[in-house]
Amino acid sequence: MFELSSYLESKRAQINTTLEKYFRAASRSGRLIDAMRYSLMAGGKRLRPVLCMAGAEAVGGRAENALPAACALEMIHTYSLIHDDLPAMDNDDLRRGKSTCHVQFDEATAILAGDALLTMAFQILSDAEFIDIDSGQAATWLTVIQRISRAAGYQGMVEGQMRDIAAENNSLSQAALQQLHALKTGALIEAAVYSGAVLGNGRSDQIGQLETYAACIGLAFQVKDDILNVEGDPALLGKGVGTDELRRKSTYPSIMGLEASKAFARQLIEKALLALAPFDHRSEPLRAIANYIIARKR
Amino acid sequence: MFELSSYLESKRAQINTTLEKYFRAASRSGRLIDAMRYSLMAGGKRLRPVLCMAGAEAVGGRAENALPAACALEMIHTYSLIHDDLPAMDNDDLRRGKSTCHVQFDEATAILAGDALLTMAFQILSDAEFIDIDSGQAATWLTVIQRISRAAGYQGMVEGQMRDIAAENNSLSQAALQQLHALKTGALIEAAVYSGAVLGNGRSDQIGQLETYAACIGLAFQVKDDILNVEGDPALLGKGVGTDELRRKSTYPSIMGLEASKAFARQLIEKALLALAPFDHRSEPLRAIANYIIARKR
Repeated sequence: MFELSSYLESKRAQINTTLEKYFRAASRSGRLIDAMRYSLMAGGKRLRPVLCMAGAEAVGGRAENALPAACALEMIHTYSLIHDDLPAMDNDDLRRGKSTCHVQFDEATAILAGDALLTMAFQILSDAEFIDIDSGQAATWLTVIQRISRAAGYQGMVEGQMRDIAAENNSLSQAALQQLHALKTGALIEAAVYSGAVLGNGRSDQIGQLETYAACIGLAFQVKDDILNVEGDPALLGKGVGTDELRRKSTYPSIMGLEASKAFARQLIEKALLALAPFDHRSEPLRAIANYIIARKR
Repeated sequence: MFELSSYLESKRAQINTTLEKYFRAASRSGRLIDAMRYSLMAGGKRLRPVLCMAGAEAVGGRAENALPAACALEMIHTYSLIHDDLPAMDNDDLRRGKSTCHVQFDEATAILAGDALLTMAFQILSDAEFIDIDSGQAATWLTVIQRISRAAGYQGMVEGQMRDIAAENNSLSQAALQQLHALKTGALIEAAVYSGAVLGNGRSDQIGQLETYAACIGLAFQVKDDILNVEGDPALLGKGVGTDELRRKSTYPSIMGLEASKAFARQLIEKALLALAPFDHRSEPLRAIANYIIARKR
């Protein structure tokens, strides 16, 4: 029987080792690198990189081929958290139970560490030391850069954060909230699975199914986040709960109610699992991740 | 006889038209796009994109092939200005005679507009709609992405900004100041000329010469900036003068004196021109730009 926890452990170890390798290759030190590493190594779940690697495996490819994309995605995710936590944005002091970057260092350093992590992601994705650009793979890496940059920028994550800020004092419809999340978190999660599938040499029909899977779990992840902000355990979460209500943020529980939100999350996971139906046992990690997303306590 | 002003005018028009095209292709609107465009279209000199296109021409290539890189460089330059101007950094209200992004919009929007411009640069550099990835050019674009991301990130511009902030209350040696500028502005200027030369299919010896050229004019540009901050005309510059001394910033004039700084800038330009010696008339724009850098009033 497939065991997710040992799978996640082994993938996270690979991801962390590879991230460390990229920083060693940098052979730089100083406050900027310290701040970048501080946030990058702060014990994140590594959801996006694991999804990227699992996407490669699901189509029959080697997870290792997707590692540069996996690590780049985590760098982009981490940069977005650093900037979201800034005083001018969400003004959060704690993240994963640790001081946020601007609290640990200072605001200017946090802005620059975020900028540098975002830039480093594209450096990794184009570095011949880490990616194979000889055997006709250069175009594939450009495709990955294209998808990831699209998902991360003004057509994706950054626009999602803009809407998130604008939404703080406005109540949203469920459609607007869903659109916000599709941009803020969904796009990058889809890009993660897509990149893995492409780097695993998946067929276009496989890639299409996996994109459906990713869209569903991305949204379910966010619904679950909102649910945890209502009834989660701050000790497990490493951050406060009830903060959404305090900030009068539109959330699934606030729009649909708590029970309907849970049902909605379950439906999304079922749809995600259905999208995996055509795949063989190699998609088992993606299946297990879908179930984990809804069961998680943190 | 070659006339720089009409050359610059025609290149700037091409760059602005292409930037507009990229935004039209985006088919998005809203506050984020408005802020991105506001700063990108605020009347910058377009030095980096022009250098990129002129680099392509100098090696006998077509300037148009370098346009996506040229525009990406301007996006990265603009993002860096937006973030540098933030209250947590240099806290500047005016840039090119206009309100800075966070003054015109707000701080969160400015941070995100910067993030989105940086991300958009890599989106442009990997978009099959704008770049030719079919005829074996994919690896070339990856090389360009690699060089630009390296120049922009923790091994280049961002690290330079970190050192610039750290230097505000410390006096620097000339060597440390030169290293700071090589990182903060030199790296991206070198990447601009390099990218143009590579996209113009330059030979490696040509590219090497052009990198020397770029390193010299990049530094000269900064020396001249420091000189203008001492004796420039605020009306022409569109920003205040004397601000470096007020902030006790280490500058070339403060370290070497004003006259020695002028001599140093002239030497650098001579070295840049020497690096162009092996090139034919098609390097005339680069020659003229070198001379312009030292003669400019703004």
